[in-house]
Amino acid sequence: MKFATFEVETPVGPVERIGAVSEATGADGTEEAAAGEATLVDLTAAYGAALEAEGEPAPADLARAHVPPEMIAFLERGDRAIDDAREALEYAAETDAERGPGGAKLRYESGEYDLLAPLPRPNSLRDFMAIEEHVQNSMDGDIADVWYELPVYYKGNADSVVAPGETIRWPDYSQIMDYELEIAAVIGKRGRDIPAADAEEYIAGYTVFNDFSARDIQGREMEGRLGPAKGKDFANGLGPYFVPADDIDVLEAPMTARVDGEVWSEGTVDEMYHSFADIVEHVSQSETLHPGDVVGSGTVGGGCGLELGQFLEDGSTVELEIEGIGTLEHTVVE
Amino acid sequence: MKFATFEVETPVGPVERIGAVSEATGADGTEEAAAGEATLVDLTAAYGAALEAEGEPAPADLARAHVPPEMIAFLERGDRAIDDAREALEYAAETDAERGPGGAKLRYESGEYDLLAPLPRPNSLRDFMAIEEHVQNSMDGDIADVWYELPVYYKGNADSVVAPGETIRWPDYSQIMDYELEIAAVIGKRGRDIPAADAEEYIAGYTVFNDFSARDIQGREMEGRLGPAKGKDFANGLGPYFVPADDIDVLEAPMTARVDGEVWSEGTVDEMYHSFADIVEHVSQSETLHPGDVVGSGTVGGGCGLELGQFLEDGSTVELEIEGIGTLEHTVVE
Repeated sequence: MKFATFEVETPVGPVERIGAVSEATGADGTEEAAAGEATLVDLTAAYGAALEAEGEPAPADLARAHVPPEMIAFLERGDRAIDDAREALEYAAETDAERGPGGAKLRYESGEYDLLAPLPRPNSLRDFMAIEEHVQNSMDGDIADVWYELPVYYKGNADSVVAPGETIRWPDYSQIMDYELEIAAVIGKRGRDIPAADAEEYIAGYTVFNDFSARDIQGREMEGRLGPAKGKDFANGLGPYFVPADDIDVLEAPMTARVDGEVWSEGTVDEMYHSFADIVEHVSQSETLHPGDVVGSGTVGGGCGLELGQFLEDGSTVELEIEGIGTLEHTVVE
Repeated sequence: MKFATFEVETPVGPVERIGAVSEATGADGTEEAAAGEATLVDLTAAYGAALEAEGEPAPADLARAHVPPEMIAFLERGDRAIDDAREALEYAAETDAERGPGGAKLRYESGEYDLLAPLPRPNSLRDFMAIEEHVQNSMDGDIADVWYELPVYYKGNADSVVAPGETIRWPDYSQIMDYELEIAAVIGKRGRDIPAADAEEYIAGYTVFNDFSARDIQGREMEGRLGPAKGKDFANGLGPYFVPADDIDVLEAPMTARVDGEVWSEGTVDEMYHSFADIVEHVSQSETLHPGDVVGSGTVGGGCGLELGQFLEDGSTVELEIEGIGTLEHTVVE
């Protein structure tokens, strides 16, 4: 199952909803539709339609409580929300009806919606640096001892998430623009002091993360010892979909970065020195994790231009693909 | 005017409101009540009462729109909210009535409420390091050139704000616990690419900020070059009140830190090398600032135990006082 957050135009202004890619799209071995062109099932509407068919007297209200049309509220319900969403998606595949209770459309075709990031505004954004090859390549082989002892990370700007396909304005203060090929775990359950052995329960699923980086300012400001800020915070790519943990083998999923159609990076996060479970244990010590918190893996080995000695240019289109999630595309312009 | 966020117990569970310290408390030269013991005027209720007195037919609804009982929603209205709050506070000082429209109490005495941080969950938290003496003292005199060129900062955990007076659990992973004496600006207006000359419009006001620091883990993790995280993110003290920018001369306000009643630090932020205006300009480049974003000044010179060679102990009570705002007190326990 691939979850999406999307927006539909209405006479009373745009409305945000959550959906899932229709089983009909790509499930039969045909090529998968590009992000933003797949048929999406409106999960709240479809869950309501299923309830209505069962004779539930207040299907729309109940559907909004079971499958809230906003991703963080949806995640708050944990595994139960994901189970309810599966039911909704199955019902939509079986029914010929076009609308659910209250007249809500069950399906949106390409052109009828705008895809947003699955979490348009995460509760928080932490990004790790858990893959040794990337650290080795980025820091001229000079890896601090602490890197092996604990998972180091910075906190990103949760207000700077861009939609899949959105054009990114190159900040005026930077000349060196880069991408980073990462996978992000999405927290689905509130918790504190979580042992690594229990971490799985807290990870709802995964999405593709492009940790755009303005390398010149990033290098300068990190000399000030408080970590990156302006070098990272202008844009965070998340999407196109959010895939439940049960539906993806995250360590084995092939990851690819293409710039203007040419493969620049390939890898997996199988090589994470600190696992997502270790990361959840580390971060949650004396801190509460919340549904909607996003945790980036760090860049796969060779997964950014800095490691390759080549950078994005004005007009470059970057596609990050993770098999089982989809392709996240952005164009950067000066 | 001193704004507070507070919580009242009700038979249907705790309810969050915003208030202001009653003009009667301390305004006549008598000693000011301690945080949590002052009389608070419920600003939404008092604004509604004023409207009702003018014959407004729907005073409660209108009051919730003009003076929303949640601080970030309140800040979204900018200067108009602050003007409306002043009106409400004046009305409450003049009337003998105890209740406003819908039966809402106009005033809460000590013991009738729990004080929360003025922003219990800021939209974001950025903390700078803008005072040279602190950097000099903390980094053994080794200040990077970049520190003089631009304001460096890290991003804190907006989910770790503790209430004034709240006891802080010392994280298990740390042995060296410290406070930092800071003032924080609260953003009240959405903006991007803001010139320093216009920055004043975007700062709604100020509060006291205790940037609690676990020095051992902080030192270790900063060797990983992504800045502090576990060393800072377990607790952020904000409060006890939020004071509008017009009501405080932020650069001149005397700031004091006391530990178990003994003065450890004194100073002002007059010595900020990068001003709040420069900080707003810097951060807002290619990033949108939002109402409820919090921006810490950095520690005043000599404003933490690290600079003094002495640290907090199990059971230590830290009071940070800024004249014109109030005293923010916390006790740390292992």
